[in-house]
Amino acid sequence: MKIVVLKFGGTSVGSIGKIKKVADIINEHKKKNYKVIVVSSAMSGVTNELVKKSQEISENFSDEEYDALVSSGEQIACSLIAGSLVHKGLKARSWLAWQIPIFTKGLHKNSRIVKINKNKILHYLKEGGIPIITGFQGINNSHRVTTIGRGGSDATAILLAKFFKAERCIIYTDVEGVYTTDPNKLKKAKKIKTISYEEMLEMASLGAKVMQPVSIQDARLNRIDIEVKSSFVNKSGTLITKRSNIINNKIITGISSTHNDSKVTLIGVKDKPGVAASIFKPLSKNSINVDMVVQNISANGKETDLTFTIKKDDLFKTKKIIRENKNIEYRKLLFTKGVSKISIIGVGMVTTPGVTFRMFQALAKKKINIQVISTSEIKISVLIDKFDTKKALAVLHKEFRLDK
Amino acid sequence: MKIVVLKFGGTSVGSIGKIKKVADIINEHKKKNYKVIVVSSAMSGVTNELVKKSQEISENFSDEEYDALVSSGEQIACSLIAGSLVHKGLKARSWLAWQIPIFTKGLHKNSRIVKINKNKILHYLKEGGIPIITGFQGINNSHRVTTIGRGGSDATAILLAKFFKAERCIIYTDVEGVYTTDPNKLKKAKKIKTISYEEMLEMASLGAKVMQPVSIQDARLNRIDIEVKSSFVNKSGTLITKRSNIINNKIITGISSTHNDSKVTLIGVKDKPGVAASIFKPLSKNSINVDMVVQNISANGKETDLTFTIKKDDLFKTKKIIRENKNIEYRKLLFTKGVSKISIIGVGMVTTPGVTFRMFQALAKKKINIQVISTSEIKISVLIDKFDTKKALAVLHKEFRLDK
Repeated sequence: MKIVVLKFGGTSVGSIGKIKKVADIINEHKKKNYKVIVVSSAMSGVTNELVKKSQEISENFSDEEYDALVSSGEQIACSLIAGSLVHKGLKARSWLAWQIPIFTKGLHKNSRIVKINKNKILHYLKEGGIPIITGFQGINNSHRVTTIGRGGSDATAILLAKFFKAERCIIYTDVEGVYTTDPNKLKKAKKIKTISYEEMLEMASLGAKVMQPVSIQDARLNRIDIEVKSSFVNKSGTLITKRSNIINNKIITGISSTHNDSKVTLIGVKDKPGVAASIFKPLSKNSINVDMVVQNISANGKETDLTFTIKKDDLFKTKKIIRENKNIEYRKLLFTKGVSKISIIGVGMVTTPGVTFRMFQALAKKKINIQVISTSEIKISVLIDKFDTKKALAVLHKEFRLDK
Repeated sequence: MKIVVLKFGGTSVGSIGKIKKVADIINEHKKKNYKVIVVSSAMSGVTNELVKKSQEISENFSDEEYDALVSSGEQIACSLIAGSLVHKGLKARSWLAWQIPIFTKGLHKNSRIVKINKNKILHYLKEGGIPIITGFQGINNSHRVTTIGRGGSDATAILLAKFFKAERCIIYTDVEGVYTTDPNKLKKAKKIKTISYEEMLEMASLGAKVMQPVSIQDARLNRIDIEVKSSFVNKSGTLITKRSNIINNKIITGISSTHNDSKVTLIGVKDKPGVAASIFKPLSKNSINVDMVVQNISANGKETDLTFTIKKDDLFKTKKIIRENKNIEYRKLLFTKGVSKISIIGVGMVTTPGVTFRMFQALAKKKINIQVISTSEIKISVLIDKFDTKKALAVLHKEFRLDK
């Protein structure tokens, strides 16, 4: 069986008109003799509206009931899509997670899919039916409705692709694919034709909001080809696949940028074992995500300076924790509210010397000061003043020939 | 176990504020040491909104998907009520029909409940939990979501009361109870304290929109006391119970009226067997509901005049069917667009002679012409000009001392 999984995001099913368009897209795939499995998110806005209702009842609304509540969003979208296909004369039906079932483990609001019962869906596919499956949800051992915290409907789609050995998983969304950099920040940004899982992971976690990292990781582990494309225009999107499938003629695949970061520096920290832990443990306990960390070698062998970045929203809390924690010894606390992390990403850099130099030189030419540097095998990140973001994206995009 | 079933209609859960009020009401019953089972409809407006969406997709939207779609409405209401109770520190949870399960038979959109699995709910009640159960829905043998056509959430509540041997079923709605007549048409209308199933059935089918006849019939067959009351004001409502529970000092319990009726008369119909069938068969086939039927004895033994009433909306279709059907022989077709049926209802009339006379005399005094008469054991209905409706209600209400 040649199976394809199609996943539609909230904006793709955001109105009845768009749902009819989605039915057309599904029909196109069916005509190509694919067995089609569809996964849908809730119509855009519906989930937020339901969440708002729950918050009006309680700021601390029951997690179990939250799941029962918001899961209705996908139920609505899926029955409308199925009804739209039936109207076109196709054999289709909605499958609510409990009807399959899709089993999850873990806490409510934050479960993960552990098992998908294949029998019924397989039987339905063999009959020529198109199953429209509710994304983002499952049931637990007590047969209560759960929602999956991370990855949402993308995760449902990718796990379905895995269990049903689908040829491809197509993620339909409101953008045409993955871009070399954020088109809102740089007009010259180009759509990427193919990108490796590893590059996409870096792009995703660094600000490209097309897909959640956890879903890309799932796809990578299960070697599932993902195509990200728009449900609004009929153009090819971006294929996310394994490295060996990519014929790469560019060193750098994309450039990502973050905003809303803040930089914190502790001057004169005692240079002895356990110091870093004493700082980061309380932050972690308070769910503050520390991103880049740089520690300079101390000149006198006794003291050192420690710099790290956090989300700007966490700055106040972070300062409070550091100041109130008597275990953290330092002389001075500095912070910069608005910094931006610019990262160039590409599997090509492993085999190409001089990438770091080219990056730094390009930024220097534009008088952009680099505050912190961090590198991995396939990416180089630098911290700069947030007001330099657009300028930095432009010069790096040109330097690495992504404009072409 | 002292069990009470509380059912909340759409307007009773029409906003978050009202849902919080509902949680208070449930809590009051819990405090009285009742085991409380709650059934809820969808928040008012939600079902209509979903139906509108389905119609935008197709005028002939799939019945199966319609059920999956609209059943989300009760799911939303129940999880919000449950969350509201949990917020108050009570043990409560939503139970979706499939989780119990509530089994149905029959066509989609028009199923009927055939079995309610008691185990899980009973166990939950014993644990001290308050189950909040989705009304109006169930699952069929194929484990697809169904909705019950007639009676809706009232039917769910009454069947739960039956299966769990509840002491009482309280139907919370937006009116304070059942009135002697429509308060919108007659200001002097009084709330009825107790009414028999039989009287309520007549009241319901004749225009009092408080409860669906099929649910009252279910309650009657299972001898379940129903209280209809408002969720907005803390006042006692109307108790619907068996005749023997009622100490009645009034001959007439209530007066109902219909509007939007039309009267059709066929003059000179051949007086031979099968004539009535030849007229009513095609009407029935076209889903036209014929209400009152009167046939005069023919003077010459060859011809007769036949009069019947239908909904005004069906008048055009009815005329067309009669004119186009060659099997129907008659000399002349007459019709009156706007007639009203006034019915006096009361179990007391069985043992009280002269009720008919008092009714006719009262109407005659006000110069209200009676066009057609029909009677049953506990009701007398007359057809009058629709412009006389209010006048007729007022005079009969006074005649039978319902003003007191």
